[in-house]
Amino acid sequence: RPGLAVAMAAAAAGLALAMAARRWRRRPVREVLFFPSPPSCTEALLAEAAEPGSPARPCPCPLPRSDCSLSRLLRRLLSARRSLEICLFAFSCPQLGRAVRLLHRRGVRVRVVTDAQYMGLRGSQIGLLRHAGIQVRHDQGHGYMHHKFAIVDRRMLITGSLNWTTQAIQTNRENVLVVEDAEYVKPYLDEFERIWEEYNPTNYRFL
Amino acid sequence: RPGLAVAMAAAAAGLALAMAARRWRRRPVREVLFFPSPPSCTEALLAEAAEPGSPARPCPCPLPRSDCSLSRLLRRLLSARRSLEICLFAFSCPQLGRAVRLLHRRGVRVRVVTDAQYMGLRGSQIGLLRHAGIQVRHDQGHGYMHHKFAIVDRRMLITGSLNWTTQAIQTNRENVLVVEDAEYVKPYLDEFERIWEEYNPTNYRFL
Repeated sequence: RPGLAVAMAAAAAGLALAMAARRWRRRPVREVLFFPSPPSCTEALLAEAAEPGSPARPCPCPLPRSDCSLSRLLRRLLSARRSLEICLFAFSCPQLGRAVRLLHRRGVRVRVVTDAQYMGLRGSQIGLLRHAGIQVRHDQGHGYMHHKFAIVDRRMLITGSLNWTTQAIQTNRENVLVVEDAEYVKPYLDEFERIWEEYNPTNYRFL
Repeated sequence: RPGLAVAMAAAAAGLALAMAARRWRRRPVREVLFFPSPPSCTEALLAEAAEPGSPARPCPCPLPRSDCSLSRLLRRLLSARRSLEICLFAFSCPQLGRAVRLLHRRGVRVRVVTDAQYMGLRGSQIGLLRHAGIQVRHDQGHGYMHHKFAIVDRRMLITGSLNWTTQAIQTNRENVLVVEDAEYVKPYLDEFERIWEEYNPTNYRFL
């Protein structure tokens, strides 16, 4: 029965095509990062992001340039093209602060929510972010704004136990999960917008 | 060509069956919980878990019994049948402590990793867990053991910003993500086993 053989061959070819198309589609990012991350030099990574294509000046510092959880986190953030929402209890890591300012300069819409009691501590990056023109809002001190998440281009969620501090990155046991999946991104985006409105400065009561 | 028609009908039936089987398979748990969670009574939930099927004694407390982020988190934990790994910076919430002891009594293999500096604070559940015979290990104070995750039956990951404290649950802005997906569960399980070995009491140096 040649007709049956032809039909089966056609069906098999169709199935193979469908499977190949599935594989060609870019696989969504799914990554888990653990800390502590050993001290490392992220200069080349940040310089390249600031001036893509320009020859990298070699950094004179003695730290290794190896791939690590911090450099991976930086790469995920630096992939932002349109928007970045950040919701962080504590933010004092200079490299991450530099990356966020860099994105702002590049035209990415950056919004930051943080905790009122921690934003003024020594080493906090919040002042530098505001100085650079980035919008920052904070709670009014009823409980902690204890989230530690970021959303890149409304499609990638970065969340976990990690505050963006050098102490946490280099010495604590921490985890960060990266998920590119609307089912998880959507509720975090909604939570961000709720907090963003609630912490609108016009609502500050200066109790 | 009746042969071809039969073959195509068979193929279509096979495809329909495969699609139905996909749908019948239990959908993996994917949940996001936000806090603060309003004070609520979890007595019925815990009593039912302790003695399934027994008539629930009505709790005299005035708190609402409504569904909330805490009751959802409790339900996820209480679904454990074989094993529960917990890796928590701070653990002082009485309801969550009670749930963990209940699982231990039910024969679930419970292992807890926590932070040395926080486990002795007032209200900590760690002493009660150890008293109940649950294995607990802790760091030796170099940096914080700052994780906040749990793994149920080696298949469900519960992770986020939330420490299991009443203060965090009732007053902080917090998030918890529940993922039933081997690609995420596996690295967290591996991290737990690494920490579990590193914090083996035979390694304590009492510096």
